[in-house]
Order: sequence, then structure tokens, then C-alpha cells
Amino acid sequence: MTNFNYDKVKHGLDREVLVNQMKNQMSDFRFTHCLRVEQVSRDLAVKYGADVDKAGLAGLLHDYAKERSDKEFIDEIKSKHLDPELLNYNNAIWHGIVGAEIIKDELGIADEDVLNAIRRHTVGSTNMTQVDKCVFVADFIEPKRDFPGIEAARKYADKSLDSAVAYELKHSIAHLVDKNREIYPATFDSYNYWISKGEL
Amino acid sequence: MTNFNYDKVKHGLDREVLVNQMKNQMSDFRFTHCLRVEQVSRDLAVKYGADVDKAGLAGLLHDYAKERSDKEFIDEIKSKHLDPELLNYNNAIWHGIVGAEIIKDELGIADEDVLNAIRRHTVGSTNMTQVDKCVFVADFIEPKRDFPGIEAARKYADKSLDSAVAYELKHSIAHLVDKNREIYPATFDSYNYWISKGEL
Repeated sequence: MTNFNYDKVKHGLDREVLVNQMKNQMSDFRFTHCLRVEQVSRDLAVKYGADVDKAGLAGLLHDYAKERSDKEFIDEIKSKHLDPELLNYNNAIWHGIVGAEIIKDELGIADEDVLNAIRRHTVGSTNMTQVDKCVFVADFIEPKRDFPGIEAARKYADKSLDSAVAYELKHSIAHLVDKNREIYPATFDSYNYWISKGEL
Repeated sequence: MTNFNYDKVKHGLDREVLVNQMKNQMSDFRFTHCLRVEQVSRDLAVKYGADVDKAGLAGLLHDYAKERSDKEFIDEIKSKHLDPELLNYNNAIWHGIVGAEIIKDELGIADEDVLNAIRRHTVGSTNMTQVDKCVFVADFIEPKRDFPGIEAARKYADKSLDSAVAYELKHSIAHLVDKNREIYPATFDSYNYWISKGEL
């Protein structure tokens, strides 16, 4: 099907083994989303000159841990001595930041560029690499995404990665506020940073 | 016209002298807005059992410094050794936090309850008194205010002060995001705090 592999990121990493490992432990809905994000993330990396394999692998794995239990995330935060502030949040935050630890341990992915892109894929960062941006934006615009604003999101992704990142953060905060939900501080910091670049 | 005075807040404070002092140094547009906020703030204080004179006086004075120059605010931040982080912001933030210092010096208002309500009237706080809330909400719903959402704002103000504060912060953030503007960190903290109370 696909004619690429991730041996360059990690020697001996067989994409088909990885894909089967994912398929067996998550819903079909999420699995196919991950495949689509992988593809879009690779496409963006090609377009914007980012490392295609790192962007693709992080895209593939970004939601690897999303269906784990709250208990598993809480245990991981404690045993890995991650920021205890994380305990005040929930799956939406954990599956990226804490999920990266689970991916490191279960799949043996040690590449910090890949792990960082996974950590940052829900909240962004004030300090994003091109790989981070590709995964962040791919997750937002993969072909099955459909929400008010998706056309604008795709247009920005076509124009520049930075404008797409800014638009995604703007959209996320507007959505959280509309639903009367709290905003994670890192999301807020990311928003202020990227919106101030004046790309929108 | 009005049959109240602020002698209780500060001995020897003549409301008519104060009102004339305001009128002479700001546009008519802002002056009449201040008078309306004073009235609504008093009304809210009566309804919700806050100190009526403190709420009224802070409402009257809340925009006292709004038409001052950027230079005056910057000089004030430096000479009073206020948080240097304030230098990164602008009139929208300064006229409350820095404005309170100008009000203290020029009008001799020393009551910290009144000054705090003025400081917090644009960004709110995670730690608001009833007086703070009356001024914050009055500024948002005074009779000449007209924007999408004003009816909901007035309904919340009628239901509870806390719900009106939460709605105002939600509305402010949504407005800033819609305009691609940065959000002041204190506004963000206030939003998270008040939205988490579940009043909306």
C-alpha cells in the first residue's frame, strides 16, 4: 500500500509491524484517523521542507495513547515524575504529553523530534519545529475533518504553516470558550504567541 | 440631581467637585458613560448586598484615566515601580491598573476597595470582591451598551453577579479571539477561574 518506511528515524523500525500494533489496540475510527494524519503530515512536510519521515511517524502515532484509561495516565504522570500540574487536566491534554511517554516505552521510539511533535499536537507551543507544525496542522485538516472553519483551515495550510497554526489555535480557543470550558495554560500561551505574528 | 455623596468612603469628598473634575478632562462620551456605570454599579450593589458607596464611587471613576497618553502611563509604571511586564501592554490594560495610581494621586482616593475595583475593571481577577464584581458588570451592561450578547449579559446580571462576571469574561475572550488579538494573562486566569464555577 504505502511505499515508505521509518527506518531512517529508527533503525529496524518496521512500519507494518507498528501499524498492526496500533490497529490491535484502538478503535477503527481512531486508527484510520491516524493513517490520514500520517499522510497529510508527510504532504505538509514535503511542501514546507520539514523532515518527512519524522513528520509522518509522529502523525501516525499522535493518538496512539488516546484510548487509554485515566488511571493509566495518572499512574504514568506519577511514576515518570511529570509535572504534577498535569493531574488537574484530562485525556485531552494527557494523550499528547503523557502519551509520548507511553509511546517511548511501548514502541521504543526515542527520537525526541518525533516525541515532541506528539507532546505538542493538542496544545501547540511557543517553540514549534517544522515537524511539530506539520503534525499539529495535519491533525486539524485531515480529509475527514468537517467543522465550520475547515475550509479556512485548509486555505491557511496551503498559504503557510505558521498561519495554519495560528488559525488552529484561534479556532480551538473559540471552541472551548463557546462550550464554557477551561483553557489549558499552554494553549493560551501558544495562542498569544502565534496570533501576535500577524499571519491571519 | 443625585442625592447621594461619597463622604462615607472619604471624609470631605464632594461628589459634585469630583464630577466637575472629571467632566473637564475627558470627552463627553466617556463622562456620561462613567455616570451610567456609577448608577448601575450602585443598583447592583443594592441588589447583591455590596457596599453601595464604594461600588458607586469606583463605577464613577473607573475610566478616569482612560484618555491619558501612553507616555503618561509608561512614566507612571516606571516612577511607581509597577510590574514592568505592564510595559508590554496598552491603554486597554493600563487605564485600570495604572489608572488607579493616577486616581489615587490626583483625586486623593485612598480606599483600596475602590482602587482595586478600578484596577480589576477590565481584566477581572480570580479574587474579586462584591464591589469589584458590581463595577466590572456595570461597565458591561450600562444602558447605552449595545452589542450581540447584551441581552444575555443583562439576564445573567439579574440572576447572579458570578454568572454575569463569567459571561463577561467569556464574551471578552471570544471578542479578542475573533479579532485575532492577544489575550492579557490576567484575563485568561480570570476566565478559567470564573468559567469553572459552572454558572453559565
